[in-house]
Amino acid sequence: MRKFVPITKDKFADFCQHLKQKNIDAYLIWDMEGNRNANLKYLSGHPEDAILILFADGHKVLIPWDTILAKKLSKVDLVVNFKKFGKSYFGAAKLILQEKLGKEFTLEVESNISYLTLQFWKKILKPAKVKVLRPNNNSANSYLRKLRMIKTAKEIEYLKKACQITTQVVGDIEEFLKQNKSKKILTEIELAVFAENKIRERGGDGISFETLVACPKRSWSIHTYPRAGQGNLNQPGLSLIDFGASYHGYCADMTVPFAMKKLTKHQKQMVEVVEKAQYEAIQNIKEGVFGYEVAQKADKIIRDAHMNMPHGLGHGLGLETHDPGRLSLKPEDPNLLKNWNPIKLQKNMVLTVEPGVYSQKHGGCRLEDDILVTANGCQILTSSRFITV
Amino acid sequence: MRKFVPITKDKFADFCQHLKQKNIDAYLIWDMEGNRNANLKYLSGHPEDAILILFADGHKVLIPWDTILAKKLSKVDLVVNFKKFGKSYFGAAKLILQEKLGKEFTLEVESNISYLTLQFWKKILKPAKVKVLRPNNNSANSYLRKLRMIKTAKEIEYLKKACQITTQVVGDIEEFLKQNKSKKILTEIELAVFAENKIRERGGDGISFETLVACPKRSWSIHTYPRAGQGNLNQPGLSLIDFGASYHGYCADMTVPFAMKKLTKHQKQMVEVVEKAQYEAIQNIKEGVFGYEVAQKADKIIRDAHMNMPHGLGHGLGLETHDPGRLSLKPEDPNLLKNWNPIKLQKNMVLTVEPGVYSQKHGGCRLEDDILVTANGCQILTSSRFITV
Repeated sequence: MRKFVPITKDKFADFCQHLKQKNIDAYLIWDMEGNRNANLKYLSGHPEDAILILFADGHKVLIPWDTILAKKLSKVDLVVNFKKFGKSYFGAAKLILQEKLGKEFTLEVESNISYLTLQFWKKILKPAKVKVLRPNNNSANSYLRKLRMIKTAKEIEYLKKACQITTQVVGDIEEFLKQNKSKKILTEIELAVFAENKIRERGGDGISFETLVACPKRSWSIHTYPRAGQGNLNQPGLSLIDFGASYHGYCADMTVPFAMKKLTKHQKQMVEVVEKAQYEAIQNIKEGVFGYEVAQKADKIIRDAHMNMPHGLGHGLGLETHDPGRLSLKPEDPNLLKNWNPIKLQKNMVLTVEPGVYSQKHGGCRLEDDILVTANGCQILTSSRFITV
Repeated sequence: MRKFVPITKDKFADFCQHLKQKNIDAYLIWDMEGNRNANLKYLSGHPEDAILILFADGHKVLIPWDTILAKKLSKVDLVVNFKKFGKSYFGAAKLILQEKLGKEFTLEVESNISYLTLQFWKKILKPAKVKVLRPNNNSANSYLRKLRMIKTAKEIEYLKKACQITTQVVGDIEEFLKQNKSKKILTEIELAVFAENKIRERGGDGISFETLVACPKRSWSIHTYPRAGQGNLNQPGLSLIDFGASYHGYCADMTVPFAMKKLTKHQKQMVEVVEKAQYEAIQNIKEGVFGYEVAQKADKIIRDAHMNMPHGLGHGLGLETHDPGRLSLKPEDPNLLKNWNPIKLQKNMVLTVEPGVYSQKHGGCRLEDDILVTANGCQILTSSRFITV
């Protein structure tokens, strides 16, 4: 098995330096069911179900659920079997921290931690200081997210491959829709299964997330539920498929709107509006621009057409389908605004651009592509389009 | 679209009564990305991405991300569009709570909430009391989990159907392995795709979780990563597939160990040990027995064979693949033991029974079935078995 730790040596040294500057002695990442945290993978190469303790001097200790898997996949200084510590992750972590740092130290814990788990850490690690910091508080957590937002050459290579596979499957989907045009019924599930199989055939490791397919009867939903059902795609109105390939753990994400039968005048306008909003957004993306500025311009086009986009314009892509980085409007609520941390676009960020409009009466239309931010603009990594057959 | 709220009227009344007794004025459920909480679905019928406020008098207010979807799927008294409250879930929830309860009230928040989110609630809802309680503190949260552990007739109907579909697919898998015995290479991914397609063909809504397939070269991992890859199943040693169908949102979960070529003497012993441990566990399951007692007996068989089970014996099944309810050993760590809440088995619980043994040298073997607890024993809902072809 191939070991791969996404963070580069330089970035890792930079992060450890940050911990020292902030007087953080150790940093704790907690990834367990119901509480996922891709920073585990980013810093250790181990995929899931573990605690990672990173000391400010760069020493990494992993406490995994599956010790054998950790020994094969992770790149850390020590893998600890928690079963030898009264079968307690907490007990093992406590001893590891105290052995190196004594009883008084400062530990920052990643902010995905649940309230009760943190209270428990605080209690058993007393008198150590255990902190969870807000992003705008210049926390190590937010520093790490910023490092993760900028992709390395290797990460970009994997993301481009994932995007390429997904785009090829869009071509397959177009063919598949044509071949099924004469059938009275083509179900959402048939298209979902087709797309997922094609992703694997074309070399994807798997799917980035469960494929969403919505027929005209339910394309009004942003994320349709159930993800794909018995709805008939071969009827008048707007349908869509939202899906992506993963490659070496890196996620692509595309939404393709399509119609197998007639559209109303309003539905055609919906397609035009999202096309225009996406075009405008992509024109505005380049290093130095704020994410919310790009979102504002796309949002204006949609509002000017008397339509409504009930979600953000885009999000980061990487180890997670929703990786750090957002193209979202400025918060209006003063409490949220206080903690707001606007994101300035930088070279080598990878983001989705996905304007969408939804109406209970007319259905929904979303057009989603993945882009790589460059110094002067962006490179479009996928090729989504409205498909009619 | 069909509305379905899993909790029955009686159980709902019981839960509201509990809130009143504990002087909880309102109960808040938070389900967002990275912080999932199936109680949202259980109480409101709405699948995801929302806040649910339940007042002790039974009044339910939903604040969803997707308002149209909520209006179609949920059964609540009011659906609120948070975009009308400065695009803030917090702002909307605050007004809804204060309108009904004034400024001073007691709110219990479900324990999956992140530390920072809870701090934020506490701040903006001042002077209200905002609590998150530990399970053994007789929290409403733990009361609700107990209600969810006991399945209703409708839930059992859905779970049985999911289990039936999954068992049928085990038959399909056996055929598929036979047909591919003469091929030099059969990859993990080929089997995963086959099983997932069969689940849909046989009427499953989808898969309960991403299918795990491990060839002899990596069956030593409890949950193999990546989930299914290019590993060759057609070689000597132990392989396994861990998968399940979902039906109306209810999850089945089976693990089938198999061998397409020869096994060593030790590998055969591993199969025998998990078969014996599973048989023994199932014999011991009935209403009134503690989950940890069942786990202890299975664990003893494995330890007596000088092998090691690095995970729990079983878990609840329902709206989640890992639903409330565990067959796990007693904690050893005194801090964990203090908060331990042993589960007594009751009629109409649905659980997995899945002993497993793993060795870096010999590979792994896990045998997993789903059972329904009855007054005098249990009903086995699936039919897993070690397959040789």
